[in-house]
Order: sequence, then structure tokens, then C-alpha cells
Amino acid sequence: MNNGKAHLNRNAQRIVDQIIADDERFGIAYSRGPLGEHLIDAGAASSGGLEVGLRMTEICMGGLGTVSMALDRNNGKWPLSVAVHSSQPVLACLASQYAGWRLTHEKYFAMGSGPARALARVEPLFEEIAYRETDASTSVLLLETDKPPPTAVVEKVSAATGLSPDALTFIYAPTQSLAGCVQIVGRSLEVALHKAHSLHFPLDNIVDGTGCAPVPAPHPDFLQAMGRTNDAIIYGGLVQLFVRGSAAAARDLAEQLPSSRSRDYGQPFAEIFKTFKGDFYAIDPHLFSPAEVIVTAVETGETFRAGEWNMQMLEQSLG
Amino acid sequence: MNNGKAHLNRNAQRIVDQIIADDERFGIAYSRGPLGEHLIDAGAASSGGLEVGLRMTEICMGGLGTVSMALDRNNGKWPLSVAVHSSQPVLACLASQYAGWRLTHEKYFAMGSGPARALARVEPLFEEIAYRETDASTSVLLLETDKPPPTAVVEKVSAATGLSPDALTFIYAPTQSLAGCVQIVGRSLEVALHKAHSLHFPLDNIVDGTGCAPVPAPHPDFLQAMGRTNDAIIYGGLVQLFVRGSAAAARDLAEQLPSSRSRDYGQPFAEIFKTFKGDFYAIDPHLFSPAEVIVTAVETGETFRAGEWNMQMLEQSLG
Amino acid sequence: MNNGKAHLNRNAQRIVDQIIADDERFGIAYSRGPLGEHLIDAGAASSGGLEVGLRMTEICMGGLGTVSMALDRNNGKWPLSVAVHSSQPVLACLASQYAGWRLTHEKYFAMGSGPARALARVEPLFEEIAYRETDASTSVLLLETDKPPPTAVVEKVSAATGLSPDALTFIYAPTQSLAGCVQIVGRSLEVALHKAHSLHFPLDNIVDGTGCAPVPAPHPDFLQAMGRTNDAIIYGGLVQLFVRGSAAAARDLAEQLPSSRSRDYGQPFAEIFKTFKGDFYAIDPHLFSPAEVIVTAVETGETFRAGEWNMQMLEQSLG
Repeated sequence: MNNGKAHLNRNAQRIVDQIIADDERFGIAYSRGPLGEHLIDAGAASSGGLEVGLRMTEICMGGLGTVSMALDRNNGKWPLSVAVHSSQPVLACLASQYAGWRLTHEKYFAMGSGPARALARVEPLFEEIAYRETDASTSVLLLETDKPPPTAVVEKVSAATGLSPDALTFIYAPTQSLAGCVQIVGRSLEVALHKAHSLHFPLDNIVDGTGCAPVPAPHPDFLQAMGRTNDAIIYGGLVQLFVRGSAAAARDLAEQLPSSRSRDYGQPFAEIFKTFKGDFYAIDPHLFSPAEVIVTAVETGETFRAGEWNMQMLEQSLG
Repeated sequence: MNNGKAHLNRNAQRIVDQIIADDERFGIAYSRGPLGEHLIDAGAASSGGLEVGLRMTEICMGGLGTVSMALDRNNGKWPLSVAVHSSQPVLACLASQYAGWRLTHEKYFAMGSGPARALARVEPLFEEIAYRETDASTSVLLLETDKPPPTAVVEKVSAATGLSPDALTFIYAPTQSLAGCVQIVGRSLEVALHKAHSLHFPLDNIVDGTGCAPVPAPHPDFLQAMGRTNDAIIYGGLVQLFVRGSAAAARDLAEQLPSSRSRDYGQPFAEIFKTFKGDFYAIDPHLFSPAEVIVTAVETGETFRAGEWNMQMLEQSLG
Repeated sequence: MNNGKAHLNRNAQRIVDQIIADDERFGIAYSRGPLGEHLIDAGAASSGGLEVGLRMTEICMGGLGTVSMALDRNNGKWPLSVAVHSSQPVLACLASQYAGWRLTHEKYFAMGSGPARALARVEPLFEEIAYRETDASTSVLLLETDKPPPTAVVEKVSAATGLSPDALTFIYAPTQSLAGCVQIVGRSLEVALHKAHSLHFPLDNIVDGTGCAPVPAPHPDFLQAMGRTNDAIIYGGLVQLFVRGSAAAARDLAEQLPSSRSRDYGQPFAEIFKTFKGDFYAIDPHLFSPAEVIVTAVETGETFRAGEWNMQMLEQSLG
């Protein structure tokens, strides 16, 4: 379906250039690192904010998505939500936005997301994504952390993408920042695609998608901050997928996708995390999915809906 | 009011150029036809999708409108809607977006819409629209069909617009495709204007307008697909018009505009179509209008509202 | 925090250039005044409309905000609202958007708003805003009136900004016009910031914000028109502020900000105005604030909400 010309990195670079040119509007701090790499602090020492969080989400989707904020006065203390859409959801969300590139060096640890992943292709997930980007002259990686990457990590990304450090941009913001919050709850669609994949739904059959989730208050404690952003999707996310294939497959997907189908559903994420003594991998991976899911079978014409918005859990978690 | 410089075709061309440049993002296939005409397949052999459907709507409105998607979790199985707005509603919707140009050749049949209509001016409707576009060097026509136009149709459009075939772009997508669905439900405002015109409300008095309608699932059967897109507007559309003139005229317009004032209101469109044995022209033309209408009299300050969202009919029709 | 490079005037000029280039789409009339000043009539002798009202709001915020319209079918006769957002709310709203520059000459009277204020810095408010724009080569001022500024006012603005008249653009539209309505209800966030300031909340602690308010019908009578736009915010506005500092300070702000905390809350603004015999300054200044307020303490993680949408007052005022 794709001939490698979706230009994830070129699209992302265009947005990166815009936020650097308007650094005060976006509250970011731009600098160059020791190897010439481009660094954008979007919420660590800089103020960042909601607006750069939206742009980070667009960058993270390789420019293949539309990202916006909406206000809905029916949503109690959380009227503000982030809506995403893509007509190339597998490329935008799995080849690019998914935070699947584990980058460590000594005490430094960050999960990398964004279009550099589609160049590096170091994760097993890429065995199932045929897309190869061949024309990228620059690349962008998002790091959910409060520190710029150490030299060793820059070199690792440079080697894996085949680009020199001065062709790389690293954008970083901690989970505790406003921009960090926005770029995480901007993952509602990505989370649904990732779970669909783990349920063995054929990725090629997912042809379009949209999603939204409320923006929680950031929290100074990392665990609480992470918990809230996860809960925003788990208890407040809504996703609609448009899929090819049979109506039965679409119905099965709709029924299995919502977070409420998970064993661990029903408590704030931070509590669940404590219950499992901080062992992330002991948590049911199927918990990470939107509260409400709609699946439309585009070849046969049916629409299936399952799960629902859980206001009680949102109130308990989001403060 | 207009001196011919609204640039419907120039605006549309700009958006056409963008989607060709980003063909993978929009899931379209671009090619050239035998006479050098530009062809964009947005949902026939190509995947197309929701996003190109939005851009098609903007193109169709001659770039004189704002088109966006929104998610509203209060709308049951159809949270996704297409919203349109124009401060030049008569030009955007009637001179351009209305699918009023009947193009046939042997077995080929398609209704043409978009800014090429404003150049060709072959429909009776243009007797009442003074606008003449004099500076168009290229033009765009939308065809709701799964086949590119045959040579004879390209030549007819070329002759009517006074432009050579290589200055023409034809965008096509069938009613059964996602992009087709979106560009039809993107006609909520246009449908209201067309009915206002048939009710003899003076077009010059309609100064601004906005509308929205839910996005139904596409259906593989043409009749069901057409029925659903019509029902999305007839039972789920909301339009607000801003009009000059007396409060009484605004109130009359609000009361007459909603679909519920039609004799044929109350069944899915596909059923109505069957009842009339497929004779489209036997159906009450006043059925084609939004479910809910708000008319604001800008010179006197009153706002009138009539009609309402019909969830029961949406559930019955949209699957 | 700011080094003078937020480019309020440069950003605004870019949007000004766009609406002049698309004058028919936006329904504006562009001309040059006797001193070479640029004049944009957006709703006096021209038709203007909702769309140019949105662009005026963006201009007024010095390009540091995102402005959009949304349709919410749950809002009765006023589904249409204007939403604004800024990650630089103090600069966008107080240094630029606030209509605080009183410009008079003989019988001419208009309140000026927009980025020219940040250059002129003639108001006491600027004693508390450190930002100084040093690189502006052009500037823009919005005037809520139906007449272009007389020569003496143009000269006053030229002297105060240090720019020649031909580097100045004046955009004007009366309160009774559609564009005028939109640009006023686009002030929901600004009104909240101004009241926060009058409550002595430290401006530097307001780091992000968003707001919305319904679009009322314009009214031919100035007092009614002004009353409706004020009531749209007072009884229908929703604002969320993101603030630094203690949770207690955030809670206090949330509790004091809503309009319902004002002595004069509970009647349409036009009635209140008559009660005080047209003495604007006798009205409780704390009335001018959104109906519903959410304040999020970004450093400690709490969210506080107070006030509420008042449908009864909206119905009484907005007609």
C-alpha cells in the first residue's frame, strides 16, 4: 500500500521548524547539543504548555495526523480534550507515535517515540510494518523525560537512523509537564491500534481512525502524573476505528478493545501500579486501551460500540 | 456584493496541489488522463479516507469555507461529525458545492460539483447568482462516482469552462467510500441553502452560515450508502443561517427549513426511495434539509429554532 | 520569562495580510486613509461575518492564540461558540487583546485593542507587564466602532508606537456586526485574566489558558448588542486557567473568578446598565468574568471548579 513516500520525517521536521521559529509562543527552549544535535526543551526547564503539546503530538505522528483541542462543557472538571485523527493510522501511530524505542545509558532512561523510529526500525514491531522511509535527510525523536539525551544516546540514534547528529532533533518534556500530559493523552488512537495489534487484528485492515481523551492536571509526582495520563485514556478515552474485513471481525474487535475488558480495570492506574509493586510488566497489557470504542466495518457497513466513559474513576484519579 | 474576485478556482487549486503533494497521507492516487486532465482517485481503487473527504469538501466549497471534524461523545454510535462554515455561503455552497451539473456519456453518469460549475454556469441556478469568475486559469470538478470521466465528458467540461483539459482536475470517489461519505455529509449547509432558495428566500439575504452532520458508516450497496448519507443530514443535521431582512421572514424560514416539515419525513431514505420505485423526482424535494435549523435575523436581532435531532431514525438508518 | 521576541505585531501582520489577500472570502473592505494608514472595514459598511471575526480575534491576540468555532447541539439556540487558547495568555490577552487603549478625538470614541498596545504601552497595566517588543516594523490596532479613526487618532497611535502611519493597520467593526460579536465573545479568556489581575493574582503565575463562549445574535441597538456579548461571557463563558503556585491560591482564584460572585450578577447586562443610568463605572467590575471557571494548579496537581452555565439568563438576554 505504501511506497515509502509518506515522508514521516520530512513532515515532522516542518513542524519542528515552526515551533523553533515561534519559540516564545510555544514556551520552548531551543539549543544545540555537544554533537550538534538539535534540542527542544518543551517542559523541563522551559514552561512549555498545552499548545506545544499539540504540536509534539503532530510531530510524533509524523505529520500524518490532525491534532486539536476541544472544550466540552458536559465533561465536568475536564472539559478540555485532545482529539487526533489519521487516515494513515498504522504509519502515524505504530510506525511513528508509539513509545517503543527504549533508550538507556548509565542512569539515563527514556522511551523514544516519533518518526526516527521508522528510520531506525530496531523494534520487533517493524517486522510487521512494511513501510521503509528512504528519503529522510533529517529526523526527530520525542523523549518523555526531563533531561536531554546523553552523548551516547545521541550516537546510538545517529547510528540506527544513519543520520549525523546535526540532522537529528530531540524534543523532551517530562510526564509532569503540561506538554508532557498533552502528548500522552494525544495517544488515544495509538493505544487502540497497539492493543488491536496485540489482539492479532490485521494491521492492514485498519484504514482510518480518530480518538480523544481529556487533559488531566499534571502532577509533580511522576507516578501520579503517569497514572493520570493513563487513566485519562483508560477511563475517559474514546476511539473510532474504520476497518476492512468481515462484520464479525469488527464486532470482535469492538468488544475486546475497551479497557473495561481488562482484568485490572477499575482502579486508578497509580494504585494498580503499587499493587504490583511497581512491576510494570505484571500489569495486564490489555488495560492500556480507551474506555469507549466504536469499530466501523467499511466493507460491510456495520458499526459496533462497546465500553463507556467512567466519570467516577476520572474523578478519583484526575483530582 | 461580489466583483468576481472570490477566486473559487484558485483557492480550490491550492488545496488540490496540497493533497497531490501529500498523496500517501491522504490515501489518494493521482494520474493524468488521455487528454492531459488531472485525475485524483479518492476512494475508488485507492483507499482515500476521512481526511481527504474533508479536503474534498473544502475544494468543493471553492476554498470559501472552513471544514473540520469533531467528536461528541453524546452522539451514541456516531460521535464523529463534519462541521462546515462559510461567510460566503451562497458562493461556497450554491455557486460551487451544490452537485448540480449532470454529466453523462453513454453509460457514464455523474453529478458534478465544485468550482468548475461557477465557470461553466450551465445550470439554471446561475441565472440567480450574479458572480462571474474571470481570472481562473485552472479549475476543479468533483464527481461522486467510482470511475474517471470518459474523454467526452472531459471535453464537455473543457468547452463549458473555456479551459484546456490539462488545466482541469477531476476528483472522484463513490458514495460507498469513506471520502465519499464525508464529502456528502459536508453538505449540511449547502442543503439548507438550496432548500431556502426553493422556498424563495432571497439568496442575497443569507450572509453567513454553519452546519454539521454525523459521519455514517459507508455501505457497499449504493442505495444504502446514499440513503445513509442523506439520513445523516435529514435526521442528524444542524444548520444555523444568519440572514438579513425582517424577523418575520427569518422565522418563516426557520419553520419551513427542517426536514420534519416534509411529507416524506419519518422513514430511512432508502425505504422512501423504494416506496417511490426508485423515481428520485417523485420524492418531496423539501425532504432534503437538516433535522434542526436555527435562523438568526442579523438586522433585527432575533433567533428562531425549529426541528430536532432524530436519534431513532439515525439508529434505524445508520446501522 | 520573555525576551521581547514573541513578535505580537509581526504575527498579527501576517494574518492581516491574509485577510486583505482574501477580501471577498472574509467580506471585508480594504482601503488606505489620508495619512497612508491601512484600513479594514470588517462590519461597518462591509458585510464582514463570523470568519473574519475569528481572524480578528487571532490578530487581537498578537497571533499567540488558537481561535476556532465549534458547534454543540446541547446548547439550545446557541450551538455556535468561539473557543480560544493560548500558552502565552498574559501576552496574548493582557498585553494585546484587552481593549484598554481609550482613543478619542472630538466626537470620535473607540477602545483600542490588539498588538499596537504592546508597542505604545500607554496604559497603567503595562507597569506590570515586562514585555517590550523591539523589532516591530508594522503594527495593528482593532477598534470596536463603525467608523475609521480620524487623522488625529492615527497620528496619536503613530506617535505612541513610533511607527509611521503607513506602517499601521486599523481594523474596525461595530458591536452590532457579526464580526464585532465574534471578536468580543472571543475575549472569554482575556476577561478571566483581567479579573484575576484585579484580584491580585500574580500574572506571572498564569501559564496557560483556554476559554469559550456562545455567539449571540447581533442586535441593531448598541446597548442591546453590547449587553448580549457581555452576557454571552457572563452567563455562558467557560474558562480554564493553568497556574503556578499553591493549591490554596488556585482554589481561591477559582472561587472568586466566576461572574456569579459579583454583586450585580443575575440580570441581563443591558438591564444592569440602565439601572445604573448608563454609568459604566458604577457597575461592579467583577461582573465581567466567565460563568464557569476551572483552575488547575500545575505545580501541585489539583483542579478546582466553580460557577456554572446559566441557560435562563442566556435565554432572557440573547433572544
